[in-house]
Amino acid sequence: MSLLQPTKLIHHPQTAAPQPTKPLDEHLSSDTTRAVLRIQNQMLTATRRFLADRGFTELLPPIIGPVTDPGIRGSKQVDVDFYGHKYKLMTSAILYKQASLLAFDKIFYIAPNVRLEPLLTAVTHRHLAEFHQIDVEMRDATREDIMRLAEELVSHVVAEVVRERPAELEALGRDRDAFRELVEESFDRITHADATADLVGLGHPQDPGAEIDWMGEEILSGKSSRPFFVVDYPKGSRGFYDREDLAAPGVLRNFDLIAPEGYGELASGSEREFDYATLVTRMRETGENPSKYGWYLDLARRGIPASSGFGIGLERFTRYVTGLNAVWQASAYPKLPGVVSA
Amino acid sequence: MSLLQPTKLIHHPQTAAPQPTKPLDEHLSSDTTRAVLRIQNQMLTATRRFLADRGFTELLPPIIGPVTDPGIRGSKQVDVDFYGHKYKLMTSAILYKQASLLAFDKIFYIAPNVRLEPLLTAVTHRHLAEFHQIDVEMRDATREDIMRLAEELVSHVVAEVVRERPAELEALGRDRDAFRELVEESFDRITHADATADLVGLGHPQDPGAEIDWMGEEILSGKSSRPFFVVDYPKGSRGFYDREDLAAPGVLRNFDLIAPEGYGELASGSEREFDYATLVTRMRETGENPSKYGWYLDLARRGIPASSGFGIGLERFTRYVTGLNAVWQASAYPKLPGVVSA
Repeated sequence: MSLLQPTKLIHHPQTAAPQPTKPLDEHLSSDTTRAVLRIQNQMLTATRRFLADRGFTELLPPIIGPVTDPGIRGSKQVDVDFYGHKYKLMTSAILYKQASLLAFDKIFYIAPNVRLEPLLTAVTHRHLAEFHQIDVEMRDATREDIMRLAEELVSHVVAEVVRERPAELEALGRDRDAFRELVEESFDRITHADATADLVGLGHPQDPGAEIDWMGEEILSGKSSRPFFVVDYPKGSRGFYDREDLAAPGVLRNFDLIAPEGYGELASGSEREFDYATLVTRMRETGENPSKYGWYLDLARRGIPASSGFGIGLERFTRYVTGLNAVWQASAYPKLPGVVSA
Repeated sequence: MSLLQPTKLIHHPQTAAPQPTKPLDEHLSSDTTRAVLRIQNQMLTATRRFLADRGFTELLPPIIGPVTDPGIRGSKQVDVDFYGHKYKLMTSAILYKQASLLAFDKIFYIAPNVRLEPLLTAVTHRHLAEFHQIDVEMRDATREDIMRLAEELVSHVVAEVVRERPAELEALGRDRDAFRELVEESFDRITHADATADLVGLGHPQDPGAEIDWMGEEILSGKSSRPFFVVDYPKGSRGFYDREDLAAPGVLRNFDLIAPEGYGELASGSEREFDYATLVTRMRETGENPSKYGWYLDLARRGIPASSGFGIGLERFTRYVTGLNAVWQASAYPKLPGVVSA
């Protein structure tokens, strides 16, 4: 099956000017912002209820720590001086998610992250330097289990917004019909290899051994009319914590969830590596120095549970649901890469 | 009325050794931690429901920004390099709370904060370098309005924990009778001047023109059997955003909420200053350089709404409800001042 039906790309990042932003008071007092934040609030309420009903415990994630997620596509980590020790702002809380399964079998965070994205991402309409993830982790879950959960969560949240926030959607000019297929049909999946071949066939230069770049993702996204999964990314394109497929060396047991209509990536997830020796090997393979990961590797040596999990970019998800032009509109206090604001 | 009835102090920080902490896996896999985090989760669920029912919209607070709350009792702010610009980690989101009233009349955050507290606070049982606040702000509210809201919120949350989490309270050895007065009776209030005089009478050297120190707070707290308010702190003891009493120059329209049984401060709040010229004057009086506060003063010049609000320290509130010995036990990933951990 090819996902590449001829639907229209609604965004053209390659021709976009740097995004406009507004002074904070204009942004906060606009009817658009109010409608968007009300919908985002509904999305979080729906997320919490959905996950609590399935036995997940919400925890508060850390903001700083000695080490953080290195697998973040060319963005830079932020250093913090913690009483003379070099700490980092969380780029994602993945290492803590794995640790937390020692307390509860099913956990989630609404986690703030800071990533210093390259300046050129200020024109993608998809990047914020400060953003949030709906971060879910489940003990002993397979990739199948966790993809099903991600699909059900996204469908549940969208259906609740459509049901509970029709006035806000209408004020934003977002047609509820955009979500009919999402709610009624299951999400397709395509392998990274097939997605790469499709992109090359379309004239987009995509390296089959690398992460799909944001323009490639947007092209795939623009060809679909409901969210879909890309699975089996190659080793080297993702962090050391995405588990390698034992039956297919070089391929990771992971996935991205891509929104339709050109909105691009919504979520990333995987089965997790938890074996101490394999983690050390994978760190070295991905250019990470294991000695930086003291507390995490100490824990892994004593035993981290097997798990799968994912993180949904909340502002990107909000942008898709509300049909916004740019992701900064989905934040009360938007921080664009390189732009000094409030 | 004097709050100083002869009940027993349950904590003796002046004789305490540095707090013990545990490796993260021992902490997370202990039954105590599980019970505490379940109760904390219930407290947040109860908070969200209580505030949503009263028309408050939850927003996601910023983590970093060009400027943050300076009124933080001797702790240090954390610098962050944001594309070559000096940013700060939020010590509190007070400035953003005021701004957000341009979007909604009633808002709240569950806000993560980082404060580099002095090393000596590692023995108080009450300080964490990373913690969360239930941060509430309400347009056109007086101090009376917001104190009533804080009291109702605390009573509601405690009553819900007593009702919904009896097994966890029992496992922690926390007697539900500790909360009978809290739930049934309204909270007393005492002025800062009277509290200071009481402390001096007890032999505790408390400067009447300054913040009540944490030991003084603990002494007052140990003499009470239900939470109480201290009101009317003197100018100079708090940040520029606590409004001065027009009828009593030098006195601020603010309050702290103190837990009983020696647990100390739970919350701080105030009517807010919002007048541009007064804000600039108050900044200068408190040793702050107004030129650092660009976006906030630009906003104030164009008009910030009148408001009152408060912030409840979530981990401190959790410690009180669960009867824990130390506040670090109320965090999944505790960070003590000066202690390198996970």
